[in-house]
Amino acid sequence: MSQVQLIALEHVPLINQGADLAALLFDCLLQQGLHFEDGDILALAQKIVSKSEGRLVNLKQVVPSERALTIAVVYGKDPRHVQVILDESREVIWVSPGIFVVETQQGYVCANAGVDRSNIEQPGAAQGDEWLALLPENPDRSAANLRQRLLELSGKEIAVIINDTHGRPFRMGGIGVCLGSAGLETLVDKRGERDMFGYVLQGTQVATGDELAAAASLIMGQSSEAVPAVLIRGYHYRPASDSGAAPLVRPAATDVFRYPANRKLF
Amino acid sequence: MSQVQLIALEHVPLINQGADLAALLFDCLLQQGLHFEDGDILALAQKIVSKSEGRLVNLKQVVPSERALTIAVVYGKDPRHVQVILDESREVIWVSPGIFVVETQQGYVCANAGVDRSNIEQPGAAQGDEWLALLPENPDRSAANLRQRLLELSGKEIAVIINDTHGRPFRMGGIGVCLGSAGLETLVDKRGERDMFGYVLQGTQVATGDELAAAASLIMGQSSEAVPAVLIRGYHYRPASDSGAAPLVRPAATDVFRYPANRKLF
Repeated sequence: MSQVQLIALEHVPLINQGADLAALLFDCLLQQGLHFEDGDILALAQKIVSKSEGRLVNLKQVVPSERALTIAVVYGKDPRHVQVILDESREVIWVSPGIFVVETQQGYVCANAGVDRSNIEQPGAAQGDEWLALLPENPDRSAANLRQRLLELSGKEIAVIINDTHGRPFRMGGIGVCLGSAGLETLVDKRGERDMFGYVLQGTQVATGDELAAAASLIMGQSSEAVPAVLIRGYHYRPASDSGAAPLVRPAATDVFRYPANRKLF
Repeated sequence: MSQVQLIALEHVPLINQGADLAALLFDCLLQQGLHFEDGDILALAQKIVSKSEGRLVNLKQVVPSERALTIAVVYGKDPRHVQVILDESREVIWVSPGIFVVETQQGYVCANAGVDRSNIEQPGAAQGDEWLALLPENPDRSAANLRQRLLELSGKEIAVIINDTHGRPFRMGGIGVCLGSAGLETLVDKRGERDMFGYVLQGTQVATGDELAAAASLIMGQSSEAVPAVLIRGYHYRPASDSGAAPLVRPAATDVFRYPANRKLF
């Protein structure tokens, strides 16, 4: 029977900079009486990857630029926070009260460049320190490192995805997306395959990496019972050694909703 | 241990207009040695719901309008096919070669109004008949009817979602989305909940219905081994009796990527 399991990793400790994240999660799984198997997928919340890589910024040390001050008025948030977002961005796509959409340095189009305060320890808060987490600098590289370390620890071929939650045009609510990955094809091309009656499928590319991330996100939640890692077992993915999640990012030039100047009305 | 299972329903027969879809799927599950349980979620591919409801059109009987002929030149497809899409649409949002994005009568923004030829039997093909499937007229109503029938058959409270695959701005590849649902909250509001350090979460609405649809879509595939129904077991959803998937549709007026005239540059 074709069956996929989504298993929460329990009792994941707080993650500090320099932590051996793969080893910590390997131990968590062991303590649940489980072992990694070939073909498993480990989904990690972006936040724990960022923390292990020390991708944190203290707002107290940020000096906002003129541009950050201007945007902060429209956006309605702390100009220093805006400056951090700008530092993480290639392009500002949209600003209005409460909405700040950019293209990040990594190429994702998302709110606030993924800069986020939730689930971050706040040492020094009484002295005005305020810590924000940034996205991993290169989530595909992070995923490849984690996959390599998991192979060393377990002797098993384990694919890795790194999750975040993005808002979307047309649809309400955030959804899990795949920021980085290693070991599996994230964008699966079914063009040319035939349907159940032999009809050749047209233009069917499936964002498998994002579907896996959305599935893992169901388990992760975002509140005080946060589960920052999920084991996906039984999904027959297409192995891939090096493409990562980069193919999931739509090139801006092909994105009619990003540059709608040529939009035609009928 | 928190664990969710995604289970493919096997050997689902071809679905004809008027089929008792819930009863057919109930039997498929029985033949796999499984029974429905309270709290299960049944995800159905839109295509089998449409077929059971007779939502099929024969292109041979379609006469394209002037508008359809104009759009067909830009889009590069059969004007009769374009006419069917227009009949299913409230608004044309984007047309370019190979891309035709509309708002459907149900309010979804998607390519081709969900009108699709794949996995459709083609009786009369030799006489020029060509059948296309339309989306269910009201997927939330379809889901509510299926849920009610599953309750009659099994005595269990089973939530239902109806899946389709949509393309997206910013990201490559299609992903499973929830067109209709019954019995669960599809848009879960976590605003005001606290994170693991007591920080109050800002603006966090989670599109749980879409995440469930994406998870189910992993199992469904779209080729000759198509699995048109998936049982999701072990996910602790928030029960809801009547909201359906409608809350997942972003009101056009709040969608900055749909009407970008006021977009500000910085």
